[in-house]
Amino acid sequence: MGENKLRILGIDPGLATVGFGFVDKEGSRLSPIQYGCITTEADTDQAVRLKEIYETALALIDKYKPDAMAIEKLFFNKNVTTALTVGQARGVLVLAAVQRGLEIAEYTPLQVKQAVVGYGKAEKRQVQEMVRMFLNLVTVPKPDDVADALAVAICHAHSSTWLSRLDGGGRNGRGPST
Amino acid sequence: MGENKLRILGIDPGLATVGFGFVDKEGSRLSPIQYGCITTEADTDQAVRLKEIYETALALIDKYKPDAMAIEKLFFNKNVTTALTVGQARGVLVLAAVQRGLEIAEYTPLQVKQAVVGYGKAEKRQVQEMVRMFLNLVTVPKPDDVADALAVAICHAHSSTWLSRLDGGGRNGRGPST
Repeated sequence: MGENKLRILGIDPGLATVGFGFVDKEGSRLSPIQYGCITTEADTDQAVRLKEIYETALALIDKYKPDAMAIEKLFFNKNVTTALTVGQARGVLVLAAVQRGLEIAEYTPLQVKQAVVGYGKAEKRQVQEMVRMFLNLVTVPKPDDVADALAVAICHAHSSTWLSRLDGGGRNGRGPST
Repeated sequence: MGENKLRILGIDPGLATVGFGFVDKEGSRLSPIQYGCITTEADTDQAVRLKEIYETALALIDKYKPDAMAIEKLFFNKNVTTALTVGQARGVLVLAAVQRGLEIAEYTPLQVKQAVVGYGKAEKRQVQEMVRMFLNLVTVPKPDDVADALAVAICHAHSSTWLSRLDGGGRNGRGPST
């Protein structure tokens, strides 16, 4: 570690909408840097949509230069076709991150809720409200994908605090910069 | 179309093993050009494995310069976690293909069996034996992932024969021939 600042890219993956949020962590303070959605059109070829997601993610990473990407593990109860579709989008997002040398952290929905609300069975609205408070935002970011992306970024911020307390925390200690 | 030769890359996606097979189609004749597996180690980070798959796929595409990639649609009955894992691998493979400007064709397992064996409920062994015969191989290629990749390439070869007969028309022309 050594340094005290970490820039985290939180991601909520999907084919039609990818939520993203860049959050800076400095000591115990969190600041939202940029957040929004990558969207693709349903009437476009799936392959082209994956390429758009990949290229936009690379461009965002190159612009905001995060140290780490945090992404949900997606143990969802949805059907197999959904899992496959989201999985493909997730694949190209993870690829973009690993190509740019980011640390990649995965969290289950339970871990995100626990880290953000302190309660694993928290409702979506509670999570969103805590996201708003942690980041000092006036309103909850919309759509839900953005709030979800910020939530997983906050989850990573809290987890990495723990890891740094654990004496440099093994392989998860990462030094941000500037 | 115009030209009479088509080089097809058949893909059987997965995280641990990606089967691939390059098949040339000239008139009604099919020739195997190269086939094998991209494998990744289970004890490696998933993100790194996805990067290895992506980079190896790009290298293979650059070396053998196929015109099209054929890949199974994966309506499998497996569980959601499997779908997600395979989906991620599939995402980076489709990305590699679209970045290199390949035509991408998807077929259901039913379509592959129908095209290769002429019978949608054919058993795996029958499909493998027909792959061997179509490509004039002495033995069935191993592991199964390779035979599956070659099967979907053959399926596309047959479908594109149909398409060319249909005067270039209709994107849904499907079915075996020769």
